[in-house]
Amino acid sequence: GRLTHVDETGRASMIDVGDKVPVRRVAIAAGRITLAPSTVALIRENKVKKGDVLTVAQIAGIQAAKHTHHLIPLCHPLPLTKVDVRTKLTDDGVAVEGEARCTGKTGVEMEALTAVHVALLTIYDMCKAVDKSMVMEGIHLVEKRKEVIE
Amino acid sequence: GRLTHVDETGRASMIDVGDKVPVRRVAIAAGRITLAPSTVALIRENKVKKGDVLTVAQIAGIQAAKHTHHLIPLCHPLPLTKVDVRTKLTDDGVAVEGEARCTGKTGVEMEALTAVHVALLTIYDMCKAVDKSMVMEGIHLVEKRKEVIE
Amino acid sequence: GRLTHVDETGRASMIDVGDKVPVRRVAIAAGRITLAPSTVALIRENKVKKGDVLTVAQIAGIQAAKHTHHLIPLCHPLPLTKVDVRTKLTDDGVAVEGEARCTGKTGVEMEALTAVHVALLTIYDMCKAVDKSMVMEGIHLVEKRKEVIE
Amino acid sequence: GRLTHVDETGRASMIDVGDKVPVRRVAIAAGRITLAPSTVALIRENKVKKGDVLTVAQIAGIQAAKHTHHLIPLCHPLPLTKVDVRTKLTDDGVAVEGEARCTGKTGVEMEALTAVHVALLTIYDMCKAVDKSMVMEGIHLVEKRKEVIE
Amino acid sequence: GRLTHVDETGRASMIDVGDKVPVRRVAIAAGRITLAPSTVALIRENKVKKGDVLTVAQIAGIQAAKHTHHLIPLCHPLPLTKVDVRTKLTDDGVAVEGEARCTGKTGVEMEALTAVHVALLTIYDMCKAVDKSMVMEGIHLVEKRKEVIE
Amino acid sequence: GRLTHVDETGRASMIDVGDKVPVRRVAIAAGRITLAPSTVALIRENKVKKGDVLTVAQIAGIQAAKHTHHLIPLCHPLPLTKVDVRTKLTDDGVAVEGEARCTGKTGVEMEALTAVHVALLTIYDMCKAVDKSMVMEGIHLVEKRKEVIE
Repeated sequence: GRLTHVDETGRASMIDVGDKVPVRRVAIAAGRITLAPSTVALIRENKVKKGDVLTVAQIAGIQAAKHTHHLIPLCHPLPLTKVDVRTKLTDDGVAVEGEARCTGKTGVEMEALTAVHVALLTIYDMCKAVDKSMVMEGIHLVEKRKEVIE
Repeated sequence: GRLTHVDETGRASMIDVGDKVPVRRVAIAAGRITLAPSTVALIRENKVKKGDVLTVAQIAGIQAAKHTHHLIPLCHPLPLTKVDVRTKLTDDGVAVEGEARCTGKTGVEMEALTAVHVALLTIYDMCKAVDKSMVMEGIHLVEKRKEVIE
Repeated sequence: GRLTHVDETGRASMIDVGDKVPVRRVAIAAGRITLAPSTVALIRENKVKKGDVLTVAQIAGIQAAKHTHHLIPLCHPLPLTKVDVRTKLTDDGVAVEGEARCTGKTGVEMEALTAVHVALLTIYDMCKAVDKSMVMEGIHLVEKRKEVIE
Repeated sequence: GRLTHVDETGRASMIDVGDKVPVRRVAIAAGRITLAPSTVALIRENKVKKGDVLTVAQIAGIQAAKHTHHLIPLCHPLPLTKVDVRTKLTDDGVAVEGEARCTGKTGVEMEALTAVHVALLTIYDMCKAVDKSMVMEGIHLVEKRKEVIE
Repeated sequence: GRLTHVDETGRASMIDVGDKVPVRRVAIAAGRITLAPSTVALIRENKVKKGDVLTVAQIAGIQAAKHTHHLIPLCHPLPLTKVDVRTKLTDDGVAVEGEARCTGKTGVEMEALTAVHVALLTIYDMCKAVDKSMVMEGIHLVEKRKEVIE
Repeated sequence: GRLTHVDETGRASMIDVGDKVPVRRVAIAAGRITLAPSTVALIRENKVKKGDVLTVAQIAGIQAAKHTHHLIPLCHPLPLTKVDVRTKLTDDGVAVEGEARCTGKTGVEMEALTAVHVALLTIYDMCKAVDKSMVMEGIHLVEKRKEVIE
């Protein structure tokens, strides 16, 4: 028979989104990594030994967004229609923005956030030989919206 | 030109589900692992050295369901809308039930079964230091149904 | 500072195997799936519509063994030196045996068991169109040994 | 605020397919691997030590197609409804054909091509102990079409 | 012939660690997520609808550490011997600490950091229905050391 | 009991490399994709809409090498110490070279070849909107050697 009497307190559970109507969804997340001025200069001149930091970070972030539901246990797989990662070199680090879009039954904020996190991790990895005091900060959701499909 | 004369006897083939209409689908699978009474007591008291057995098993089962099409060669990727794993500690082991739901073109029984298998494997892994005679038994499909979407 | 005062009761934890000496390790696991006699006949004659059941199951089992540490949360990645899956068609089903070997710091029983589970799941998937009463049974560890490397 | 002034020249970007209407899509790709006549003979007689070359290659190709969006950074995840890999042993090698189908917003040529590439790589792997001069050649898209769903 | 004249400026490159001697390595990383007091209360009472937040986050972090080299392009695969994720509920959020260990040729700081990032993302996912202002902050390397193996 | 009487003809089998001594191994593979002159010009000027073709291809190739044992069923997991992908734009296409290194029990030619295949597929993906006649050609092993570690 069914396990109908299982105690459910605190039990992990994926929300059932079967009843939701697919709508077009967009989410934008952002974060930054603080770098030493000398590291910023190396990135600007594309002289970091491991390669073009911002491009590798951007690609890693895009690929990670497609892995979100494998990384975060209670996330649903989603038919992403676009993932974008934008980076901006500032005087004291790199600002990263991630965008995810899908036409589906749940929001894509976790995909946008995952893209930002992994892009930041990749910058960290590429600069860690020359910068020992990097910190990743301010990772948050900037915007989330949906549009009903006519 | 096309390989039109290939001998097809016994050739592995993914069924084409392109013509099927998406309907809401549910599948429930179940299985159990037999444990020594002393192991059952350790789980009940949450004293297994590797951690909270039933919670880790439940999460592993949910994540595995999302990997089903990568594990089973001829399974299709499916837009799962819910995965749930329920566990029940009995006198001689743990009963596990897995549930998968999607709105798609094929059934989700393989996802429900995969969740059960990997939840059982995880219980085995967490208890193997203290229990050398565990057996996984009776893994089967309990129920499978579909509902046409109005 | 460090989180030294975290309450550790029931917290999931990967065993630290850093102090263990690498030794050659072998594990063999087994299990079976019960099938209707008509399904056994279809497999024997290689007439199952989805293809050569035993070969596909064998390959799926081998590949799954290499995914074990991604499926089971507290398993360590291991440098597998061999994975083998053997199948035997009987009058009422298929018996599956999985073998894993490595030269490493922890045992390979989870890899052998995972190979068996996923091989059985694959047989289930390939026969589910014609057999509605399959059950996976008796999945257990047959043998586990290690040999110190001279 | 948004990173609106990022320089976009040469920046990797996933095309946004959110506005596209889902249609039924088919793509067929092909390629070949050149083999020594003695290797062709071993495959024909199913005497290659590592196993049934064409079946393992076929299954590897099917599974790889489902991984396409994880392998190729700017590919979208797609709800594949069918993947097929056909192989044909010729006098000087193996011809491989891959077919992918989905009902989705973008074409499936990358999935068909990925199936061919990984099937060829698998043939290479299985024969490399006996054949040192294999070359993979002529991998291309054979056909791509879409059908509007009424 | 070899592509010996390729321009290497800014080209992505995995550092060759083949000459390094394997030593025992440890890395500890930390970070935090800010939460509304009402969310902290829900977690403390284990009343978050999606389940036991800290346990799910911990397991997700452990599993993610094992995926590090697939997420970060220029990271090497490493034979991790331990991954641990510790969480501590504070008045205004959750502090997370990740620890990775291996006996290998490169450091494990990326694995420790990845565990922290994905644990934080999982907390975000589980609380996002009730808390709209969460921010992930201060993710950094706490400690990194190696011990030569006698 | 053990399945000792299984018929082994043609059965897929991972070679047991447990007895091999770990040595330093290097493999280099190469291949090319033919492109229209107008496509070559777009790549040279970094004007392909999807981004910097050669950099994205290079990163995709490096990441794919780390997935080799998940893509090719009978490949062993290997502790790669370096992966490198080099590209060279020619008048009629792109030449790609992949290099893999490890200190392990089996050769790394499949990793070098997989890097080349996936780099070529990525070039194909990024140029397919503007070039309909690309062919991937001449993918082969250039060099394979091992060095005993003193």
